[in-house]
Amino acid sequence: MIKFYSINGELVPKEQASLGVTDLSIQRGYGLFDYFVVKKGQPLFFEDYLDRVERSAKWLHLELPITKEELREQILRLIRANGEQEAGIKVILTGGYAADGYSPERSNLIILEMPPPVYPKSKFEQGVKLMGYDYHRTFPSAKSINYIVGIYLLPQQQAAGAEDVLFHSNGEIYETTRANFFIVKQDDTIVTAGEGILHGITRKKLLEVAKHHYAIEERKPTLEELKTAKEAFITSSTRLLMPVVQVDDVTIGDGKPGSVTSHLLELMKAEVERYLSVN
Amino acid sequence: MIKFYSINGELVPKEQASLGVTDLSIQRGYGLFDYFVVKKGQPLFFEDYLDRVERSAKWLHLELPITKEELREQILRLIRANGEQEAGIKVILTGGYAADGYSPERSNLIILEMPPPVYPKSKFEQGVKLMGYDYHRTFPSAKSINYIVGIYLLPQQQAAGAEDVLFHSNGEIYETTRANFFIVKQDDTIVTAGEGILHGITRKKLLEVAKHHYAIEERKPTLEELKTAKEAFITSSTRLLMPVVQVDDVTIGDGKPGSVTSHLLELMKAEVERYLSVN
Repeated sequence: MIKFYSINGELVPKEQASLGVTDLSIQRGYGLFDYFVVKKGQPLFFEDYLDRVERSAKWLHLELPITKEELREQILRLIRANGEQEAGIKVILTGGYAADGYSPERSNLIILEMPPPVYPKSKFEQGVKLMGYDYHRTFPSAKSINYIVGIYLLPQQQAAGAEDVLFHSNGEIYETTRANFFIVKQDDTIVTAGEGILHGITRKKLLEVAKHHYAIEERKPTLEELKTAKEAFITSSTRLLMPVVQVDDVTIGDGKPGSVTSHLLELMKAEVERYLSVN
Repeated sequence: MIKFYSINGELVPKEQASLGVTDLSIQRGYGLFDYFVVKKGQPLFFEDYLDRVERSAKWLHLELPITKEELREQILRLIRANGEQEAGIKVILTGGYAADGYSPERSNLIILEMPPPVYPKSKFEQGVKLMGYDYHRTFPSAKSINYIVGIYLLPQQQAAGAEDVLFHSNGEIYETTRANFFIVKQDDTIVTAGEGILHGITRKKLLEVAKHHYAIEERKPTLEELKTAKEAFITSSTRLLMPVVQVDDVTIGDGKPGSVTSHLLELMKAEVERYLSVN
C-alpha cells in the first residue's frame, strides 16, 4: 500500500501532499521530472536516473536543494516507508514559490510513488501503432514537465488507436512524447536519433547491449525509411521495449513484431536481471 | 491587504491555498491562465478576459467547471473579500488531478489576487530594450501556462538588460514572451502580427482606438524592417503600452520613444477611463 509521498524531504500522507499555488509549476509550467521503476524493492538503473535529474536541473537553471546523495536517501526512505517491491517513482523539481509569478526561487522537490503501469501482453505480442505529428520538442535534452503538445493531442491519439505520438520535423524522426524510437533496417542495422531528443536511460541501456550484436546508426531515421524498415520499436522506463507495427498509414515490415525486436527485448530483460543481481 | 485566494469557488487564506501534487500543472505543466488588472475596484475590460478564458479552455480541451457567469461572480467575490481598489487578478485553470499522471480530469480553478506590478517611470520615458530569440510559441493562441522558453532565457535576458524576449522565426517577428509587439513605419503605419500569436486584450483595444488615427497592417513585421522603423512598442495588461527603443543591437528610430507611441498611450489611457466610467 502506497501511503506516502515525500515533499521537500518530509514523508507526507499522499492525500495531504500539496504545493502552494504560487509554485512556478502551477503558475508557469516550469519544472523538471524523472521517472523510474522499482523492481524487487530496488530502483532500476538508479545512478543513471539520479544523474539525469542533476543534468535536467542544470539545463533548466533549477537548483537541486540537496545533494545527489541526499536525493538517493530520500527516495530510498520513501520506498522503505511504502514497502512496495514493484512500483514507479516520480521525482519532480519545480521552479519554487515565485514572488513575482515568473522568476524561479528555491525549488520544491516532490517524490511520488505509484503502482507500476501494466501494459496488456497483446501490445508486446502484436505491436502498437503510433500517430505522427510534425513537431520538435522545445529543449528536448532536459526532462522538463512541458507536455503541452502530447496532452493536447490525446483525443486525436486515442481516436487513432495510437499508443503514442511520434514527433518528426522536415521528414526526420525524433522521438515519441514519452519514449525513444528506433527502426531496424533490412540489413538489421538499428537506427535511432542521436540528438535533438531526450536521452532515455532505457535507450542508453538498449544501445549498450545491442552493440554487441547489431550495427547501430545514431542519426534521425526519416519518414521515407519507415516504408522500407524491417522493424520498429520504442523504448521507455515502463515498457523497456515495445514493438511498433504501424505509423499513421505506414505498415512497418510485415505488420508484426520482428525477430530483432524480440531478441533485443530478451537482451534487455537479461540486463535488468543482471542489474538487480549485482546491486 | 490581500488575504484570500479562491480555490474551486472557496475563499481560502492565501498561505493555505494549495493544490495536491497530482494536479496536471505540477505533473505535466498542463493548464491555462489569464491575467487582468483591477482599477478603482473594477476588473478592466472584464468581458474580454472572461471570453478569452473560455477560448483558451476550449483550445486546450479543458473544461471550465462553472459557467462564465459564475466565474465572473467568483472573481468579484474575491475582489470584494480582499477590498483592494488597485490589483492584478490571475485565473488559472489546470488539467486537474490526473489518476494516470497524464490525462486531464476535472479541472482545478484558482483565482489569485496580487498587487499590480509597478514599472519605473523611466521605462515609459526612455523606452526599453528587447532581446531577440529565434522561436515560435507552441499553440500561441491559447494562453497556456507553458513559459519554459521565457523562464529558461531569464538569466540571458537580465544579463542583456532587456525588458523581455522578442520571438522571431524565419526573419518574422511574432510577439514577446508576455506582450504583443508593434512597429511604426516612417509613414506612421502601425504593423503588428495578426496570427501565430496570443491575441492580447490590450492589443485588441489598441487597434480599436488606433484605427481612427493611423493606418494599420496586421502582418508580421520583419527583423529587416526593424532597422528602418520609426518607432516600436509593446502592449500588455500591466503596461498598457511601453516604448521599445532597442532590439538586440538594432536601435529603433532615434533611440527615443516617438510621438506616435506617446499619442497611442494617451489614447489608451483615455480608453481605460472611458471603460471605467461606463462599467
